[in-house]
Amino acid sequence: MSKPPSSPALAQFVAATAGRNMTQPAYIAVATGVAMMMLLTVEPAYDVLYRWIGALLWACLAFFVFEWGVRLRHAILAQTVWSYVVSLRGLVDAAGALAVPLALVSGAAPKTAWLLGVLWLLKVLPGVRGLRQLRRVLVQESGPLLSVLVIFLVVLFVASVAVYFLERDAQPAAFDNIPAALWWAVATLTTTGYGDVVPITPLGRLVAAFVMICGLGVFGLWTGILATGFAAETRRDNFLKTWESVSKVPFFAALGPAAIADVTHMLRTMDLPPRTTIIRKGQAGDCMYFIASGEVEVDLPGKKVRLGEGAFFGEMALLGNHLRSANIATTRLSKLLVLDLVDFRVLMARHPDLSQTIDAEAKRRELENQ
Amino acid sequence: MSKPPSSPALAQFVAATAGRNMTQPAYIAVATGVAMMMLLTVEPAYDVLYRWIGALLWACLAFFVFEWGVRLRHAILAQTVWSYVVSLRGLVDAAGALAVPLALVSGAAPKTAWLLGVLWLLKVLPGVRGLRQLRRVLVQESGPLLSVLVIFLVVLFVASVAVYFLERDAQPAAFDNIPAALWWAVATLTTTGYGDVVPITPLGRLVAAFVMICGLGVFGLWTGILATGFAAETRRDNFLKTWESVSKVPFFAALGPAAIADVTHMLRTMDLPPRTTIIRKGQAGDCMYFIASGEVEVDLPGKKVRLGEGAFFGEMALLGNHLRSANIATTRLSKLLVLDLVDFRVLMARHPDLSQTIDAEAKRRELENQ
Amino acid sequence: MSKPPSSPALAQFVAATAGRNMTQPAYIAVATGVAMMMLLTVEPAYDVLYRWIGALLWACLAFFVFEWGVRLRHAILAQTVWSYVVSLRGLVDAAGALAVPLALVSGAAPKTAWLLGVLWLLKVLPGVRGLRQLRRVLVQESGPLLSVLVIFLVVLFVASVAVYFLERDAQPAAFDNIPAALWWAVATLTTTGYGDVVPITPLGRLVAAFVMICGLGVFGLWTGILATGFAAETRRDNFLKTWESVSKVPFFAALGPAAIADVTHMLRTMDLPPRTTIIRKGQAGDCMYFIASGEVEVDLPGKKVRLGEGAFFGEMALLGNHLRSANIATTRLSKLLVLDLVDFRVLMARHPDLSQTIDAEAKRRELENQ
Amino acid sequence: MSKPPSSPALAQFVAATAGRNMTQPAYIAVATGVAMMMLLTVEPAYDVLYRWIGALLWACLAFFVFEWGVRLRHAILAQTVWSYVVSLRGLVDAAGALAVPLALVSGAAPKTAWLLGVLWLLKVLPGVRGLRQLRRVLVQESGPLLSVLVIFLVVLFVASVAVYFLERDAQPAAFDNIPAALWWAVATLTTTGYGDVVPITPLGRLVAAFVMICGLGVFGLWTGILATGFAAETRRDNFLKTWESVSKVPFFAALGPAAIADVTHMLRTMDLPPRTTIIRKGQAGDCMYFIASGEVEVDLPGKKVRLGEGAFFGEMALLGNHLRSANIATTRLSKLLVLDLVDFRVLMARHPDLSQTIDAEAKRRELENQ
Repeated sequence: MSKPPSSPALAQFVAATAGRNMTQPAYIAVATGVAMMMLLTVEPAYDVLYRWIGALLWACLAFFVFEWGVRLRHAILAQTVWSYVVSLRGLVDAAGALAVPLALVSGAAPKTAWLLGVLWLLKVLPGVRGLRQLRRVLVQESGPLLSVLVIFLVVLFVASVAVYFLERDAQPAAFDNIPAALWWAVATLTTTGYGDVVPITPLGRLVAAFVMICGLGVFGLWTGILATGFAAETRRDNFLKTWESVSKVPFFAALGPAAIADVTHMLRTMDLPPRTTIIRKGQAGDCMYFIASGEVEVDLPGKKVRLGEGAFFGEMALLGNHLRSANIATTRLSKLLVLDLVDFRVLMARHPDLSQTIDAEAKRRELENQ
Repeated sequence: MSKPPSSPALAQFVAATAGRNMTQPAYIAVATGVAMMMLLTVEPAYDVLYRWIGALLWACLAFFVFEWGVRLRHAILAQTVWSYVVSLRGLVDAAGALAVPLALVSGAAPKTAWLLGVLWLLKVLPGVRGLRQLRRVLVQESGPLLSVLVIFLVVLFVASVAVYFLERDAQPAAFDNIPAALWWAVATLTTTGYGDVVPITPLGRLVAAFVMICGLGVFGLWTGILATGFAAETRRDNFLKTWESVSKVPFFAALGPAAIADVTHMLRTMDLPPRTTIIRKGQAGDCMYFIASGEVEVDLPGKKVRLGEGAFFGEMALLGNHLRSANIATTRLSKLLVLDLVDFRVLMARHPDLSQTIDAEAKRRELENQ
Repeated sequence: MSKPPSSPALAQFVAATAGRNMTQPAYIAVATGVAMMMLLTVEPAYDVLYRWIGALLWACLAFFVFEWGVRLRHAILAQTVWSYVVSLRGLVDAAGALAVPLALVSGAAPKTAWLLGVLWLLKVLPGVRGLRQLRRVLVQESGPLLSVLVIFLVVLFVASVAVYFLERDAQPAAFDNIPAALWWAVATLTTTGYGDVVPITPLGRLVAAFVMICGLGVFGLWTGILATGFAAETRRDNFLKTWESVSKVPFFAALGPAAIADVTHMLRTMDLPPRTTIIRKGQAGDCMYFIASGEVEVDLPGKKVRLGEGAFFGEMALLGNHLRSANIATTRLSKLLVLDLVDFRVLMARHPDLSQTIDAEAKRRELENQ
Repeated sequence: MSKPPSSPALAQFVAATAGRNMTQPAYIAVATGVAMMMLLTVEPAYDVLYRWIGALLWACLAFFVFEWGVRLRHAILAQTVWSYVVSLRGLVDAAGALAVPLALVSGAAPKTAWLLGVLWLLKVLPGVRGLRQLRRVLVQESGPLLSVLVIFLVVLFVASVAVYFLERDAQPAAFDNIPAALWWAVATLTTTGYGDVVPITPLGRLVAAFVMICGLGVFGLWTGILATGFAAETRRDNFLKTWESVSKVPFFAALGPAAIADVTHMLRTMDLPPRTTIIRKGQAGDCMYFIASGEVEVDLPGKKVRLGEGAFFGEMALLGNHLRSANIATTRLSKLLVLDLVDFRVLMARHPDLSQTIDAEAKRRELENQ
């Protein structure tokens, strides 16, 4: 790993690996590694395939060690070792590369040591979009969520002591001690209800019924809190993503800052890969699009027109006839701003000048297409 | 199927079948077919009724083949074969017509082949109103939903490896390999809790308790995301349905576009079959109605008055006395716009001219009725 | 029941009974009746108490027959028999009075016939406040809820056929026929998970895992829809309850209709029984109150001041010092309008004249109390 | 406890104890006490550690008695005995101090008496932030929640009578009487599904399926109601916490009351302990901060600048470059007001004068740092 890679393909691969996102080979390695780790425990499969399973596991491990090495080297060169090592990405990289070897070295049975390969799964977490959003919701709502957790725990402990007291004579084996009763209580309060331990005395069942209904309540509170937090976060997240793009669209440039904030709340950002059909001819149309970056191709009869950054399209279906009049597809990775019919009406009503711009453009296009 | 139908009733039936929505006979065929398919597996019923069951199953199959044929022919005539075949409707039609015969032809036991009759159920899906709305919510919120799914899967795998490690010595039969532990984990994380496999070691139970509580969290996040998406979608859907109708009501014609957008947010669309009573005399009234299309009949003492498109009614209960003064029912399929008392107040306050129009009409009606 | 009641107490009782709400004796009769009906099935209790249980059951039945008779007679006198008989109240009254006698007459064993006494419970339903609100939410959201139900049913049937096919050879007893598989599917899709029937083949378990995760999704959609509907309904309901009261408070009389609609959205109605303490001296205050009807008593040092309809109180804690300066309690059934600190600030900001009125009144009160 | 404490450390400790919040030793005592109480029931642990367990339990009890005594004495001195005794805090203090001794005195077996130590857990409840918020939601939404509870109970009773009737012949042991059927019904309606009692007749299973689906509905309604209530409460709570602080920030002093109400809705309060890093250099910035109280230290290259009450920071990342340009941490307990980028844009658009102030300050700082 200390020598620079000798071939350009390898160089490219190392560069992609050094970037801190998951590469496609990494996804494949995670899937293969975890699948092999599972097969290792399935007797008949292992007996037949033990050579393959072993080889693939070692290959995956090698890949993760290599990946970690490349990133460490990159971080050393960029003098960001510490920030890489303590970052979420750095920690899961280290765990993926070191856990299994350390277990093997420290003398664990190989079948047991390879179980730690499940930690490779954690490598996908830093790459999940929306995880940041989820984390923010949990942080913002941590106060009420913790309150519900405390209530959950208090109900859990009080109920298990009560049921222990009520059931220990009737079922000395099942309700032997309070930890056993806690096991029952947690399965009941989460409405999991294994049924391996069940109260049989009338009073015990009364307490159990109360615990189950509390379970519903805890569920409800938890969900209510998260739903509230999520609504706020979604609104915020959408605004942040859209704000930057709006200012790049000349169409909105004439608006004052208050109106731009207003418009931003109405728009939704959409990232599209190349050659994606956005509008299909003959479909009902209920939104129009602004191109924040990228390019689209309009498939008019007899010719193809390309629209670039700052242009808009799809407005004709909103103005008169409700059917799309042409196929439109992206030519490369594009970021579009979507304006729903609902908000289109409101926007046109509030800003008559925008309305005129759109009307004029629509008329010009109609003439052109005739 | 190649000859044109000879009788007018059949012609009508074929025309209805060619339309891509479910006809009433189709609903009956689906219900009968699935019921017979179920009876086929119930020993005592089958022994007694095997002739009937067989006959009805073949009849249902014949109907679905006929339906598919009619639609294919219609699509060929209209030169839309491809778009029909790849549409959801076309796929479920083909599955309903072909699955069972193909299974029979390929040598499956008849009782097994007819099980594929359950695919007939899918034919109801394209006809479900609101499914489009649900799909849009799932698409809009796919980002956060996928994040939750990834978290779900990571917890699932890590927990099952942990419990496999902790329980394999205590319960070698139940926690034989990791797939078996995964089965336990999925039943626990969804709070289903079959109880067929249950951890018994203290540490295994601790992990299980943690998994259950994570289950609550996943539930909560999932629900919160869907609730947020649904609120936005409902608002949007209602606006789209109402917008068209509002502009047809002369009462609102005088309003500017901003006010119309405003009004549209307040109104709710209601589609009513003929001879439906909308208002019952003597009931408390908390909304008024505008007729977007159709007709209603007001049952005044001694005479019946008909109100057509663009008229409004029910405003008197909002202005003075709170009880409805006459029965009002539709005479044919009608689309009404409903304005709740809440929004009536706000609307009248914001647009005093509308208020005067309604007052004048209400007074005129009162005089007329005396 | 044909003779007029002879004593004034009885007359009063009959009058209360004729009113269509639950009287206190009716609640007691329902509770007693259902409790006795349950005891009837508990062997040891019945053996000891059979005389008492029988007597109480007959007494409850007699009460419900009497209640139904009084209401029928009242309805006949008021010429509203039909509307009473077909109303929810009329139907549950009839069921409560007739079900058990009819079962006894038609030859059912007494212990079985009395089980129908559980129908007495339905008598509490028409009296539940908020049930109308719930019904409205269900009606408003019936479209999406039905869509989810259809999805639920399609998943249910398809999954049970699949699991039947996969498990029938491995577990011929448990997955004997499709109805048996449906029983498994419904317990799994609702995440109930009895565990009496559980798939054991790998593919069966895979289908089961998918069904469980669908169960979470159905849950989430269902809840999301109801939460959305509920939010809209709560807002509407509150507006309706508050609107009437606001116009009776002179304080708001000077406002135009737009401002009144605005204010109505901010206020919350509160019905309080007599002698309820609203404000406790020394507590932190975060809202002020307007008296829509009724009367309150302010417990000032050395004297007691009564405030009647249209007055307001609690504003001092919002203006300066944050602690309540006196105990205030209702003297009779009162309806108060509550204005939260949040909305108080907004309202004062938007309507400076209201602000002045409140300031003046607060100063006058402060001077008076010195 | 009657003598004044002799050492300053003890005096300080007593003073902290007299305050009605949980002290750190109290948290430790609760955790130790409950853990020991649980160990008491675990045979092997008890046999080995019985001396330690006994000693620690007595120590915890002594602590709680001492705490209760100190608070009682403090309340007597402050002449607020009654209000302390009937407060939630007073009740749980009394329960914690008296329950176990009373049980021991009244002759219960020691192992049973100490079970009451679980009541010590209740002592954490009054200290939970956000519990007040939860309580307010439950109170506000008590109407609909009770309606759902009534529906829950009616379904519960009707279903258990129906299943008792349908199953009593098939399973005389499991469905012996209605209370036994109720036990089944509550486990089913809450979707807990122990599986200890399960209907086996076709009709009984049909009723059970209906009960499970009702369970989903009850869940959904419950959650929907709580989510709605929680959204309203969160908005209100945030406003109350923020309002006070806003008026102390000179930056907002120039705004009129309407604008201040407006700004308050945008800000979020954050309480931070000393030496907490708020901003990390190089991170992406999406909010700015106002100091309502406390102090922060900006770690500029070569010097450290302290900002006190009323100052703001973090605005530069919002104006131009999106990366934070310095580390900023609190020096002591501080209350910050956070303004999200979303709201920053809106605020600047609505109040151009604020925008100028921030621009000027940002420019001044940039010059200074060069």
